[in-house]
Amino acid sequence: MSSEINIVMGSISDWETMKEAALILDKFQVNYDKHVISAHRMPNEMFAFSKEAASNGAKVVIAGAGGAAHLPGMIAANTILPVIGVPVQSHALNGLDSLLSIVQMPAGIPVATTAIGVSGAKNAALLAIQILAINDKNLQTELSAFRKKQHDKSVESGEKLV
Amino acid sequence: MSSEINIVMGSISDWETMKEAALILDKFQVNYDKHVISAHRMPNEMFAFSKEAASNGAKVVIAGAGGAAHLPGMIAANTILPVIGVPVQSHALNGLDSLLSIVQMPAGIPVATTAIGVSGAKNAALLAIQILAINDKNLQTELSAFRKKQHDKSVESGEKLV
Amino acid sequence: MSSEINIVMGSISDWETMKEAALILDKFQVNYDKHVISAHRMPNEMFAFSKEAASNGAKVVIAGAGGAAHLPGMIAANTILPVIGVPVQSHALNGLDSLLSIVQMPAGIPVATTAIGVSGAKNAALLAIQILAINDKNLQTELSAFRKKQHDKSVESGEKLV
Amino acid sequence: MSSEINIVMGSISDWETMKEAALILDKFQVNYDKHVISAHRMPNEMFAFSKEAASNGAKVVIAGAGGAAHLPGMIAANTILPVIGVPVQSHALNGLDSLLSIVQMPAGIPVATTAIGVSGAKNAALLAIQILAINDKNLQTELSAFRKKQHDKSVESGEKLV
Amino acid sequence: MSSEINIVMGSISDWETMKEAALILDKFQVNYDKHVISAHRMPNEMFAFSKEAASNGAKVVIAGAGGAAHLPGMIAANTILPVIGVPVQSHALNGLDSLLSIVQMPAGIPVATTAIGVSGAKNAALLAIQILAINDKNLQTELSAFRKKQHDKSVESGEKLV
Amino acid sequence: MSSEINIVMGSISDWETMKEAALILDKFQVNYDKHVISAHRMPNEMFAFSKEAASNGAKVVIAGAGGAAHLPGMIAANTILPVIGVPVQSHALNGLDSLLSIVQMPAGIPVATTAIGVSGAKNAALLAIQILAINDKNLQTELSAFRKKQHDKSVESGEKLV
Amino acid sequence: MSSEINIVMGSISDWETMKEAALILDKFQVNYDKHVISAHRMPNEMFAFSKEAASNGAKVVIAGAGGAAHLPGMIAANTILPVIGVPVQSHALNGLDSLLSIVQMPAGIPVATTAIGVSGAKNAALLAIQILAINDKNLQTELSAFRKKQHDKSVESGEKLV
Amino acid sequence: MSSEINIVMGSISDWETMKEAALILDKFQVNYDKHVISAHRMPNEMFAFSKEAASNGAKVVIAGAGGAAHLPGMIAANTILPVIGVPVQSHALNGLDSLLSIVQMPAGIPVATTAIGVSGAKNAALLAIQILAINDKNLQTELSAFRKKQHDKSVESGEKLV
Repeated sequence: MSSEINIVMGSISDWETMKEAALILDKFQVNYDKHVISAHRMPNEMFAFSKEAASNGAKVVIAGAGGAAHLPGMIAANTILPVIGVPVQSHALNGLDSLLSIVQMPAGIPVATTAIGVSGAKNAALLAIQILAINDKNLQTELSAFRKKQHDKSVESGEKLV
Repeated sequence: MSSEINIVMGSISDWETMKEAALILDKFQVNYDKHVISAHRMPNEMFAFSKEAASNGAKVVIAGAGGAAHLPGMIAANTILPVIGVPVQSHALNGLDSLLSIVQMPAGIPVATTAIGVSGAKNAALLAIQILAINDKNLQTELSAFRKKQHDKSVESGEKLV
Repeated sequence: MSSEINIVMGSISDWETMKEAALILDKFQVNYDKHVISAHRMPNEMFAFSKEAASNGAKVVIAGAGGAAHLPGMIAANTILPVIGVPVQSHALNGLDSLLSIVQMPAGIPVATTAIGVSGAKNAALLAIQILAINDKNLQTELSAFRKKQHDKSVESGEKLV
Repeated sequence: MSSEINIVMGSISDWETMKEAALILDKFQVNYDKHVISAHRMPNEMFAFSKEAASNGAKVVIAGAGGAAHLPGMIAANTILPVIGVPVQSHALNGLDSLLSIVQMPAGIPVATTAIGVSGAKNAALLAIQILAINDKNLQTELSAFRKKQHDKSVESGEKLV
Repeated sequence: MSSEINIVMGSISDWETMKEAALILDKFQVNYDKHVISAHRMPNEMFAFSKEAASNGAKVVIAGAGGAAHLPGMIAANTILPVIGVPVQSHALNGLDSLLSIVQMPAGIPVATTAIGVSGAKNAALLAIQILAINDKNLQTELSAFRKKQHDKSVESGEKLV
Repeated sequence: MSSEINIVMGSISDWETMKEAALILDKFQVNYDKHVISAHRMPNEMFAFSKEAASNGAKVVIAGAGGAAHLPGMIAANTILPVIGVPVQSHALNGLDSLLSIVQMPAGIPVATTAIGVSGAKNAALLAIQILAINDKNLQTELSAFRKKQHDKSVESGEKLV
Repeated sequence: MSSEINIVMGSISDWETMKEAALILDKFQVNYDKHVISAHRMPNEMFAFSKEAASNGAKVVIAGAGGAAHLPGMIAANTILPVIGVPVQSHALNGLDSLLSIVQMPAGIPVATTAIGVSGAKNAALLAIQILAINDKNLQTELSAFRKKQHDKSVESGEKLV
Repeated sequence: MSSEINIVMGSISDWETMKEAALILDKFQVNYDKHVISAHRMPNEMFAFSKEAASNGAKVVIAGAGGAAHLPGMIAANTILPVIGVPVQSHALNGLDSLLSIVQMPAGIPVATTAIGVSGAKNAALLAIQILAINDKNLQTELSAFRKKQHDKSVESGEKLV
């Protein structure tokens, strides 16, 4: 059995970005599994993973990839779990290729896309938690507390300006 | 009390796009409310809506907007419900402005972004259903049937090629 | 009561850019207030600020933000004061996202947008002063002197070329 | 003597766009002059216009141009009046060239840029009125009424959705 | 057994573009199979196809897709046959999304990408023939004749200019 | 007589990128020639090379160039050998200019384009080998082994995540 | 012997754009030759043309092409005559590909690039005339008259606005 | 009296780029003047310069500027001398704004645009020399020698590859 949230990424080099998702989940004490599953170098594992994710107990998949980023969309093609796609910042085109490869999915197979890079990774985790929170009062409370804390931090940062 | 899914759009002209989301929800017999709530022309209503959505019974918000599309992100700032953003195709820049205004959210406030235009609207509805289906076996069954049907339709379309 | 010019920014990290606006205002001895008001993390403060800005004595608002930059447009939605938007240079897309999120406002709610980054912050301050100067002969004189100085500095810089 | 607001455009073909600014000013019963002044074909007239605008009684200049759109920036170089630039939608690049040519001004000479095309033209007029309204209670009242009307129109448009 | 060249496309709507590849192959009397295989709606068929293509006798695969175009890259991940990717022109972004989704493949899994749209479809067929021609003197002769004909047609078209 | 694979590049500075293609070919023990042939500075050599490549024994040409990258397309215009184009990352526009100059070939003269930069150079070599492998069982075996190795390396990289 | 100005284009379909250059030259009674010379389909003719242009009496070459537009740069590589490049508006990418393929030439081989499409074609002719006018008083007089006429036409067009 | 070639730039910071043009002219022993003339900070000097350039003996103007780069187009508006525009690489948008502001000139006023940055500056000088060379056999000889040298340098650079 897997955790409710699965973080997958196309390459170990994406971990630099995707660990930010993991850190958010840690903060919320939400369990997660994490895997390198390259859509292009490990297509069989990708298919096996995506077809079995739901029956293994996963509820949300977070998938990060860069360049011609096919991983989130191909996982989404093989599961009815919500798949959140994180466009990892690429070298030449700064993640514009990653973003368009992930977000421009054809009708029928949705991928919930977040921002390019670290902000996107963090928000993917938060989005996953918000999805789980729909049926989890505890998570709702914790999300509200998290929002309050980040609000207060913004307020405080501004007070230093004076 | 509102329905579990709320479709909001920044302008009545976005309905042309967003009705595709509604048609998908109709197919799945999932109830939804639909509202025009302009972030810029109806900011108070937007705040009231987004702050009360959860307590009104909503579980997922689908927000479509074009150009400097602030609606999805501003709703997301006021609720911990998952917010799905649909970039409506704009006139001059073909929706690239809508897409970047919606997807490039800062860390802390996620918006689940789908594709520009009609495909994005349809996928927003499907994503909302996939989110509800996490805890709804019936919806899971229906989603699998929907996937099967769309698979079969693709297969059949190809058979005409011969 | 606030100053006639209010500089607001979405995050303390935008101060690096927005302080250039402050330095210009300092030069002209025009008073200003400065605040961190995140549209997404501090939506209530943003609404309160923007609704009360005029009655608090503000005449022009300068708002800087990056990425999916909703702050200038959302302030503009809540006040009839002129709002000047500064697109802060973002990480992945170099501020193209910030620019489009700020400038592509729908008809009805204008935002006076300046260039991406430091030049835009400086010009936001100058634009604010030019607006105040419409009814302030002193400021007109000072602006003309400033223009003359910057003209002379350009001329002198060229003389070193020979 | 000229009116307080001057609408200038680089070509008679820009009138299709810029007349939307004029219609807004008509609604507010704010007088304006309108001129075709091509930066490239009528440089002398452009210089004369921009240098004399203030002494002729103008308070705000609205300048629309497309492509390599130099008109707003060159007028701004010759006056300390606030100059509002409207990027007219161009043929090949849809106004992206117009936008960047207008908004990316160097530090020292600001241009208050609005959206590409018709929305930008309307907002240029509204911005000009908002600037004049700083010292004009009547205009403030009218702007608030205009905002209220456009709010109500949005609300009503949504009521047809049910 | 399949033909030496396989044309696959993500949707029947891509046939409008991809039939141009077929017409070229017809001209050269090179046999081909053609299939609709949606990466996202028919992932199993896509995997089966791509894994068996070589053993079925295929030598080159031509794959056309639009938007978040994953088909060429995912086929390439499952075969060592040369895969030629044709970016079909998409609605909102004119095929820029298709192009980047196809061409920006990570190291290890190449896709031979051609131009967006009809020109790309034609060139995909010609490229496939050029590949087969490496070991086929007849095809070399026919390609040279084709080149000569298209040269002559260009020359003749210019003669009408005088 | 030349080798079966010819690597050409527009400038010695492209070698930094193109040597990655050479390293792949080394791994597969496939012979290759490598040349600097600037389309713009050595047009005669370019014509001579491209017209004689086939009769000299070449089977595939790999051509890398940056900026207004004409080399791959102009070689392709002079030979019926398959030409693989590698867009070298350029300074100002990060290779977007290189990519469009190479991939957007008119109907009639195909260039098999790979990704911008180092990934594209590696994939150009792999694509060339895949083309040769169509008629070379040994290369097929080696390609499968290479794919397996890169698969295993991905799998192993992920195991370090736990 | 050829005329002093040579208009060449990559395809007969470019004539729609390039004839605007011809019309300008007609107005100035400057002789010109016009040819379809496809860089990719007629490379030998292109080389012959560009190498012999100067000795045939040409003084300026105007070259229009679209997509991966190699014609202007390749002619420039084979002559020391000034070459003016006109980016013809392409189908999918609206001429952005044409522009970058023409303007981003490497150091050593300049191409004088004008705007995308019809404006660029007209300006290419005017630029050629301005070049010839350096040593031709008559042309100087005619250019000044042309400028005056276009100035007056702009002025008159504006007078209709009142 | 000025030299036959005038290099002007919008800011002293552009000298870093534009000095590359100067170095080329030095190599050819072609005299030139160089000036900082900011279109926006020194509009009067710009007008004076551009109107008097021809009568002062200038034959070609090279103008470099970045961002909203109006200098080349505005000089071109005031002279019938050929004006060569060099898009200086800008900070946020890497010179795409500079390029579009310079190249997308309206019909009637041409600017001969070169590549972004250093390559463009070098080519501006070479283009100016090629223009002068039309009536200068010596310069023709020197250009041919320069081309030969750069050809040989390319050839030699490639010989090191073996």
